[in-house]
This record gives sequence, C-alpha cells and structure tokens, in this order.
Amino acid sequence: MARWEGNARGRLERAALTLFGEQGYDGTTVAQIAQRANLTERSFYRWFSDKREVLFAGDDLEAHFLAAIEAVPAGTGAMPTLLAAFASVPEVLRPRDFLRERAVVIAANPPLRERELIKMASMSATIVGALLSRGFDEQTARLATEVGSAVLGLATRRWMDDEQTAFADLLSASASDLLAVAADGVPAGKRS
Amino acid sequence: MARWEGNARGRLERAALTLFGEQGYDGTTVAQIAQRANLTERSFYRWFSDKREVLFAGDDLEAHFLAAIEAVPAGTGAMPTLLAAFASVPEVLRPRDFLRERAVVIAANPPLRERELIKMASMSATIVGALLSRGFDEQTARLATEVGSAVLGLATRRWMDDEQTAFADLLSASASDLLAVAADGVPAGKRS
Repeated sequence: MARWEGNARGRLERAALTLFGEQGYDGTTVAQIAQRANLTERSFYRWFSDKREVLFAGDDLEAHFLAAIEAVPAGTGAMPTLLAAFASVPEVLRPRDFLRERAVVIAANPPLRERELIKMASMSATIVGALLSRGFDEQTARLATEVGSAVLGLATRRWMDDEQTAFADLLSASASDLLAVAADGVPAGKRS
Repeated sequence: MARWEGNARGRLERAALTLFGEQGYDGTTVAQIAQRANLTERSFYRWFSDKREVLFAGDDLEAHFLAAIEAVPAGTGAMPTLLAAFASVPEVLRPRDFLRERAVVIAANPPLRERELIKMASMSATIVGALLSRGFDEQTARLATEVGSAVLGLATRRWMDDEQTAFADLLSASASDLLAVAADGVPAGKRS
C-alpha cells in the first residue's frame, strides 16, 4: 500500500492516479475517482477544484522556495543560495510513488504537459525575483535560476529512485555533473 | 524604415506589431492588420493562418538546429556541439527590431507567453533527441540542452542590443558567464 493513502485526501490521490493509469486521464471522471476512494464527490471537491488539481495542487513549492531563500545568510553567492534553499525541497514534495505515477500521466497528455511547463515557468520567475531582491543583478539571477532548475530537476529524478542519499548530497552531485558538462563548452583560457 | 518591410509578408508583420503595440494583441483583428499594410485579408492568409502566427511562424529554428547539429564533426563533446550549432542561429532569426517588439507583445499577454513556453519546450526536446542520436547518454543530453538553452537565450538578448559582435563570440562569452555562476555552487574539491 502506498505511503500517502492514510487520509481522505491521500485516498483520493491514490484513486485518481490508479484510474488515470488504467483508463487515461481524459477518460476518468471525478465521480469515478470518488467512488474508487469510497468517498463522495462532495468530499472530492472539499480537497480539489477539479481532477487536474489532483496533479498540480498541494505542494506549495513556491512559498517554500521563498521562505528557504530568505533563510540563507546574506552575502551567500547566487548558486550556493539556491542549493541551500533546495536542500529542504523533499519536505514539501509528494511521496515518491505519487510523483512517479504523476510523471507518467503528465508525459502522456499534452495539455497536462503545458500546465506543468507553466507551473515551472512561474516557479522560475519567483526564484529570479527572490534573487533580485537579495541584490543580485538580473543576468546572475537568471543564469543561477536556469542552472539551479536544471540541477534541481536532475536531483529530484535521482531522489525518486534513491531513498538512501540525503537530498543535499544529490543536489551537490547534480551541480557537479552540470558543471562538468558546462565546462566542456568553455576552453580553459576563457573561464572567468 | 525597418529592415524587414520590403515585401508583403514583411509589411504584414510590421503592421501587426505596430497595431499590437498601439491597441493590444487581443484588440487587433486580421482585417486591421491587412488594411494597415495596404493589403487584402486574403493576402494575410496566404502567409499566416491567424494573427498569432505572425509572432510564431517562420523562423524554422528546429529544422535549422537539426541540420546544424548534424553538421558538427563526430566526436565533438555535447556542449561544443551545441555552441557550434547555435553560432549560425542569426541566419534564421527575424530581424532585431521585429524580435524586440515581439518580446514586448508576448510579455504582456499570458496566452502568448504560454505559447512561447511550449515552443521552447518543443525545441529543447528536439535538441535532446539530436544529442541522443549522436550517442550521448540521456543525462548529458538533458544537461547540455538545459545549459545550452540558457546560453543561447543570454547570447540572443545580447545580440538584440549589439550589432557589432559575432554571434559565436556572444555565445562563448555567455557560456563563460554561465560557467562562472555554476562553478560558484560547487566547491573546487568537488569538480570533476
């Protein structure tokens, strides 16, 4: 039994993902989700405004990033600020098995992929804004956010398959892997 | 007079961007664009399927990337492959003044911003695919594409304001700036 099934909300998520997997996202109704979870449609709508929100609601990542960035000591560089802030991301992520099944459902459905892109872009804009308000110039804020998002994405994919390693370690290994790829494009004499 | 105004298509683009700027994207009709360009609606539809396509059609960047990546000698690393391929991007970009006005229109309109995100994501998927088929592993292909897209974005913003510097030089300066930001997140002892 998946770890997130303990409560009404978790049962609805579990039922929704199972049905999305079995019969497709488009072919699944809120009534079916509620029925599979042994709950009423009314309790579904207590938690989610529609079936799409089962996939996109709830992790409050943006608010988490803002608070976590704010907690980093002043004077820290842009990338170290983001890596420190990202280290606590698993606290607000959904459980691994939820995220794995969610990724499959989203990959199979173009409108959901677009919704995910928009969510990511909004998150990036929030992070750029937080770096600007810490005094970084716009170019540094944008580059750090782009590099940081790639590092966070890679670390999260690793975290989904690796229950042993601390997230901060997955982040620093991913940052180091990105750096190696990026450095290969810049001759040693042109590194600043 | 802007450089791209010489032909019917260019006149339609010019008229559309002027009207989008004057009265907003949503408030502009194809009839108005055609009239402003001294052309018929019928000639508008010879070039564009709708007014949105004035902003998104025509530069064939994806096909250009595929051909340019293919032209890079085998055995080249992932980032050097992308930087070499990107050097010829200005050949297929619209003129600078078009791009500047286009960016303002898109920034002001959420559905256009979403369309742009989707276009970028599709371009990234194409580039990842091209790197995979050159034999790079998936992690390298993804990281190089993410880093390369950030470098290309920065170089393109610089190119819009800098008519003197060769695009290849803007790319390598941008790659070096990104590397400096990324390296700041990885202690020297953890660099591979």
